[in-house]
Amino acid sequence: MSLIVQKFGGTSVANAERVFNVARIVTETYDKGNDVVVVVSAQGDTTDDLIAKGNEINPNASKRERDMLVSAGEQVSISLLAMAIEKLGYPVVSLLGWQAGFQTSSAHTSARIKRVMPNRIRKELDKKCIVVVAGFQGLSKYDDITTLGRGGSDTSAVAIAAAMHADLCQIYTDVEGVYTADPRKVPNAKKLKCISYDEMLELATLGAQVLNNRSVEMAKKYNIELEVLSSLTKAPGTIVKETKKMEKMLISGVAKDTDVARISIIGVPDKPGLAFKLFSKLSAKNINVDIILQSIGHDGTKDISFTIAKDRVDEAKACVQDYIDTIGAKDMSVNTNVAKISIVGAGMESHAGVATKMFEALYDAHININMIATSEIKISVLIDVKDADRAVEAIHDKFFES
Amino acid sequence: MSLIVQKFGGTSVANAERVFNVARIVTETYDKGNDVVVVVSAQGDTTDDLIAKGNEINPNASKRERDMLVSAGEQVSISLLAMAIEKLGYPVVSLLGWQAGFQTSSAHTSARIKRVMPNRIRKELDKKCIVVVAGFQGLSKYDDITTLGRGGSDTSAVAIAAAMHADLCQIYTDVEGVYTADPRKVPNAKKLKCISYDEMLELATLGAQVLNNRSVEMAKKYNIELEVLSSLTKAPGTIVKETKKMEKMLISGVAKDTDVARISIIGVPDKPGLAFKLFSKLSAKNINVDIILQSIGHDGTKDISFTIAKDRVDEAKACVQDYIDTIGAKDMSVNTNVAKISIVGAGMESHAGVATKMFEALYDAHININMIATSEIKISVLIDVKDADRAVEAIHDKFFES
Repeated sequence: MSLIVQKFGGTSVANAERVFNVARIVTETYDKGNDVVVVVSAQGDTTDDLIAKGNEINPNASKRERDMLVSAGEQVSISLLAMAIEKLGYPVVSLLGWQAGFQTSSAHTSARIKRVMPNRIRKELDKKCIVVVAGFQGLSKYDDITTLGRGGSDTSAVAIAAAMHADLCQIYTDVEGVYTADPRKVPNAKKLKCISYDEMLELATLGAQVLNNRSVEMAKKYNIELEVLSSLTKAPGTIVKETKKMEKMLISGVAKDTDVARISIIGVPDKPGLAFKLFSKLSAKNINVDIILQSIGHDGTKDISFTIAKDRVDEAKACVQDYIDTIGAKDMSVNTNVAKISIVGAGMESHAGVATKMFEALYDAHININMIATSEIKISVLIDVKDADRAVEAIHDKFFES
Repeated sequence: MSLIVQKFGGTSVANAERVFNVARIVTETYDKGNDVVVVVSAQGDTTDDLIAKGNEINPNASKRERDMLVSAGEQVSISLLAMAIEKLGYPVVSLLGWQAGFQTSSAHTSARIKRVMPNRIRKELDKKCIVVVAGFQGLSKYDDITTLGRGGSDTSAVAIAAAMHADLCQIYTDVEGVYTADPRKVPNAKKLKCISYDEMLELATLGAQVLNNRSVEMAKKYNIELEVLSSLTKAPGTIVKETKKMEKMLISGVAKDTDVARISIIGVPDKPGLAFKLFSKLSAKNINVDIILQSIGHDGTKDISFTIAKDRVDEAKACVQDYIDTIGAKDMSVNTNVAKISIVGAGMESHAGVATKMFEALYDAHININMIATSEIKISVLIDVKDADRAVEAIHDKFFES
């Protein structure tokens, strides 16, 4: 008998029919003799609807009250799923985040799980109940409801799996697994049987959006085997686990991120410490900088370019203007029509020529590279957003079709 | 400085505009230097909508999961009200039933409050916060969310007032107070300045539906002064309190209850203990019997008639059929086209002729009386439902217009 944690996102429980579909997956797993803990998100657009309702009243409401409001969403979905499982004739109980033992930091709307105390879950499993747990939410030490931020239900599932030493944590979603590229855009995209935590992490960061990043980090830390699979088909998904021998592929995927903007500062005086000053200013505002490019100085000045998430552009601009005024730089330019294309693969550590192959694919497709950044298992390039889909396909075909 | 508990029903917070209206009433009370605890129900039809959503999935869902589902409704309303109060610039915190310390029995969907442990409320009041509490809900000793049943928010408010020794408990509703009859039906109905707990109890039971019965019982037990008033006008409401000197009126109100059915059993053998057998059968099924009439026996048989709530008719019929088969009675007749009209007044204890006056009013209006029941402060008659509104007006005019 195994303990299996299954997580279903909002689209998987969007209406009564889909709730029953999930109930059937869960009870089939239970029928095989497993203990089953199910983590669910709020139905479909519920969270967005609740946020809109709150904004109508007070767009500047405290984060504490926002958490109180939106966490009602999972309360509805867990009880509806439990009712569907009851209807199929199985013993079941639904638990809110605090009932399931989720203790979090008190950073409302983006709390971090500190620990899961699964006493109640264990008690219910001992009674042979299927346990349905509200994802995305927990309780602060002040006994206030917190939420984990977008995608938090993945993290909830992995945290339970870690706390209870589950044998497997299945993340059900609306795609069949992790692909070598976005299957809606690249017709030749292939589903991976297996991928390492690190590769998955890079893919998540890069906008592949299959799994929430924090959940993968946590799975890696506690060595929880994840399976990403679809709630709508019976096809086997992609396993995410620690593994030395990866499939014999140089790279495991190509990802596109269009939620990116480039800011360039022209004519920064070539003195030591000025770049540091800029990035400490940005980090003080909690603005994450991704790729950084600094031109070689000429005429005693240099240019600094960097990329950030698109929705932080206004804040970053204010910050940079302030910086320019202080240090006496010339000008700033902002470009939001950019995309970041990345390839990820544990294989590239031991194989030379991966970058060359990627650049060659882009060159063949007449796509101009704007910025380049590399890590041990990732190469990213910044290009014009209009070329993004074409770039992904070109790179994908270069690596997977040859 | 006083501690005031204010309760607002679902219609009072049905949309953003009304939520702000409530926020203004609350902050005005706070501005006068009072500590304010606000109890709110779910918005408008939220509870009914959630119930419908649950029924779509499983009409026979467990009561535990039903409670989990519907209690999400108040979670939304308390956070929205808190956001509105924040918007007006006041310190505020919203608390769910369990956070506010509501410990209840585990009779899901109709739990009873066992005690309120208001530590958290007190802590927030000490910080000068306005405290918004979810009505209608609590926590069982198994750490499961419970609800108090329909109208439970009134009880929540009174329970907090009792636990915290509040100076006043204001029940805001969509009428301006307690009237001598339903003001939507009887144009001459008068608002009462004051009414005793016992009179209010009889009126609540009799379908006046201004205050939940359990809340009045609790207010009486702990001697909490209640004020029933409208959230939409500034008019003073009706005070409900223990009082010897009532206003010099024979009766305080006329009430109509159409949620009633009469069952008659014809030809019950005239042997001792047979009536007892019938009513113990009904009470075993939790069916409350109200008025009972037993005809004088002739030919060795008698007839027994009684009234019950309309929605229990099917269950009662099965019960009665069983009884008839066992004891060998002749037949049963069921009439759901009846209404119970009642007058209530502490004054009638010391005044003769109240019943006569009531019967005279009905006689003058050519309305036939079917059954009669009396208590110390109440007289009820059962009549044809088509005469109900006319009967209320005739009785009202007889007592209040002469």
